[in-house]
Amino acid sequence: MSERVLVNQLKSLPAGPVEVSGWVETVRDQKKVQFVVLRDETGAVQLVNPATRPSAPSTDSGTDPEQDAAALALTETIGGLATGTFLTVRGELKHDERVKLGGVEIKVGELVIAAAANPETPIAADSSPDKRMDYRFIDLRQRRNNLIFRVQTTLEHAMRTYWVERDYIEVHSPKLMASPSESNAELFEVPYFEDKTAYLAQSPQFFKQMAQVAGFGKIFEIAPAFRADPSFTSRHATEFTSIDAEISWIDSHEDVARMQEELLHTAFQAVADKHGAEIQELFGVEVQVPALPFPRIPLAAAREIVAARGYDIPRTDGDLDPEGERQIAAHVAETFGHQFVFITDYHPEIRAFYHMRDEETGLTKSYDLLFNGVEITTGAQREHRVDVLIEQAKEKGLDPEHLDFYLDFFRFGAPPHGGFGMGLARVLMLLLGESSIREVTYLFRGPTRLAP
Amino acid sequence: MSERVLVNQLKSLPAGPVEVSGWVETVRDQKKVQFVVLRDETGAVQLVNPATRPSAPSTDSGTDPEQDAAALALTETIGGLATGTFLTVRGELKHDERVKLGGVEIKVGELVIAAAANPETPIAADSSPDKRMDYRFIDLRQRRNNLIFRVQTTLEHAMRTYWVERDYIEVHSPKLMASPSESNAELFEVPYFEDKTAYLAQSPQFFKQMAQVAGFGKIFEIAPAFRADPSFTSRHATEFTSIDAEISWIDSHEDVARMQEELLHTAFQAVADKHGAEIQELFGVEVQVPALPFPRIPLAAAREIVAARGYDIPRTDGDLDPEGERQIAAHVAETFGHQFVFITDYHPEIRAFYHMRDEETGLTKSYDLLFNGVEITTGAQREHRVDVLIEQAKEKGLDPEHLDFYLDFFRFGAPPHGGFGMGLARVLMLLLGESSIREVTYLFRGPTRLAP
Repeated sequence: MSERVLVNQLKSLPAGPVEVSGWVETVRDQKKVQFVVLRDETGAVQLVNPATRPSAPSTDSGTDPEQDAAALALTETIGGLATGTFLTVRGELKHDERVKLGGVEIKVGELVIAAAANPETPIAADSSPDKRMDYRFIDLRQRRNNLIFRVQTTLEHAMRTYWVERDYIEVHSPKLMASPSESNAELFEVPYFEDKTAYLAQSPQFFKQMAQVAGFGKIFEIAPAFRADPSFTSRHATEFTSIDAEISWIDSHEDVARMQEELLHTAFQAVADKHGAEIQELFGVEVQVPALPFPRIPLAAAREIVAARGYDIPRTDGDLDPEGERQIAAHVAETFGHQFVFITDYHPEIRAFYHMRDEETGLTKSYDLLFNGVEITTGAQREHRVDVLIEQAKEKGLDPEHLDFYLDFFRFGAPPHGGFGMGLARVLMLLLGESSIREVTYLFRGPTRLAP
Repeated sequence: MSERVLVNQLKSLPAGPVEVSGWVETVRDQKKVQFVVLRDETGAVQLVNPATRPSAPSTDSGTDPEQDAAALALTETIGGLATGTFLTVRGELKHDERVKLGGVEIKVGELVIAAAANPETPIAADSSPDKRMDYRFIDLRQRRNNLIFRVQTTLEHAMRTYWVERDYIEVHSPKLMASPSESNAELFEVPYFEDKTAYLAQSPQFFKQMAQVAGFGKIFEIAPAFRADPSFTSRHATEFTSIDAEISWIDSHEDVARMQEELLHTAFQAVADKHGAEIQELFGVEVQVPALPFPRIPLAAAREIVAARGYDIPRTDGDLDPEGERQIAAHVAETFGHQFVFITDYHPEIRAFYHMRDEETGLTKSYDLLFNGVEITTGAQREHRVDVLIEQAKEKGLDPEHLDFYLDFFRFGAPPHGGFGMGLARVLMLLLGESSIREVTYLFRGPTRLAP
């Protein structure tokens, strides 16, 4: 392991012996010379080998026949390399400005195949999305796809660092629950011990609130969540990574919004610094670090703006629809030059029972956050007074007895608190200008997609 | 939110007006004066209020009757405070060396109750573990329990930072799978769409190997894993947090072991630096930062050492048993003064089919890592040559057809690779000298435990 050099380090190394490992991207097997493009997790490099062919034996009388045999074998090996084969090459590094691929090449000395690929590669970059998903382990070798997950890594680490530096506690809430976490719809059931039934957590909602009641103050969690959602849109999955935070002693949802906008500002800055140029090159997208504060528009005003733009929202419940979200995003882009907007002051009828209501307006102390016209978050102050909570649950037609384990949290003291949940894949999709969360998910899960 | 001061900041503030928020830990309601210990996520502070009793009206003729009524009401409120009630207090901070609790106290001015607790607290620190788990949201308010999750946060962040600084990619592998990930036993089934069955991932094993085949090079994941394990030991749960890493282009499991020991050294250093004193105070444990390298003992030698210590391992499969693990840990502690030991060179019969075997010895290129005598990790180089992998699967009585989705990963090229999986709760349990993973898990899940 100690000898291996990463491809992106070659440029700064002196000419001379070197060892690289990676997989075969292309082979160009010409009569006199063979070229292989070898890729590793950091880049691609050209390998070169002067071909030794059996039909043209050397006329040099001083040639070592063993060396000849080795040269013949190497030429044959390289000629037979299938795309995707993983190998290690020891050879001579040469700097040559004429080589387009990084200005260096390696003259092959020794070549060791780790595992040869089947000669037929089942997918190409332009295969159908479904076919590419069947062979996601090959699809992910593409530079763009590799970059997606390096961006994911940077984004998450910047967020966690933001929280850790501010004394947030990281929790791992259970995904197996005795009762539904949010609604009885779209719920996966798991047969459990002793004929019991467990449910997969649709969100960590109840458990991150539990941390507030436990006096944790400020917490975060990045973890899977599950929805038995039969829809096939570009924004839905049956399993997704949820980014959650919850904090105590807030005055309103505004305190949550302030934390979230700072968090996103910090995380986008980290992505722009580390991957901005490469994102521009491979996705044609300039990462914009969102200015603080993000614009805020009450829902009623947003609907008026959308109407004034000539779009008539067909929904009768007073909420925005996807086109309405795109319209308000266009307005915000034109007016504030901003990609984000908090929509606030939702009516209780279109929000969860646990959203706190403003005493004066009766509207919920909650928001949605839109990023380039797509909802990525719902945030809110939660109702922590158990009697009010029970009333609000009843209003929604929920039976407080079924919520008893949750209501119990608030019977032994509770602080005012709130938080948000944010879909990781949606943020990545919108950040990179991709058309579907499937492209930015390691292994997508949907109604008809469980493998690989 | 802006006015609130955390309790651990009080000591460094000047005397004067201050606002704190937290929950009531104790109330001492004396005739002339009332004391409340208020705790928040950073510490506890004494609140003091000179009692104003209706039976003893002020004789000061200059007293404002309204102020009297307010003072009476405040005294009554404080007298009626139930343990666990969350409240905000505005008052006068006073520094007083005689106050044992931090050398400060706050004379109560105004007191606002956020949510009152039921007068009866259902558990105490010495309630049975099962009872405490029923009310985990109250149990977690204990200082020791709060510390556990701050240690968890520091431990994980140090590990992730170690990886991110070395260009590892963070992945979120799916927990819903079309086939079992490890074995057909102890598997949770989930009825899925169209009468299909999904399985909950027992580990991210196959998917973290997939990342190697995808050319990711080095990856990590910290995520839930699920085992339908009916056992009730102190070390088993049906849902647990698994810490996983996998790296390419290794020469053997030794490269994995070297990464893991460095990782643990770094993470324990971070915990010792940030929480060492508090862990000593609340758990009576000195955090030892493990010296590098950790001792390594081949399994056969370990068995001889255990036998020489007079313990006869009853297992016939050649592995250690829990008492054997404790014996070898005692030997390592006495000989090397070390809490960790890698046990290496396991026979293929007692290892997974995908462990690579040494060509000379026929033993697997794998290890277990013991921490204070308890296994916390299995690590290995994986077999990446698909023909060898199929043979090894058959040897174990597995049907390669059922493994086809996994075997496919290796048919289109693969690098040599390996990694480890480590149970977070086991590490925390052993680090803090706790007796069970239940005590260090946010919400434990077992065969008879699904709530809260």
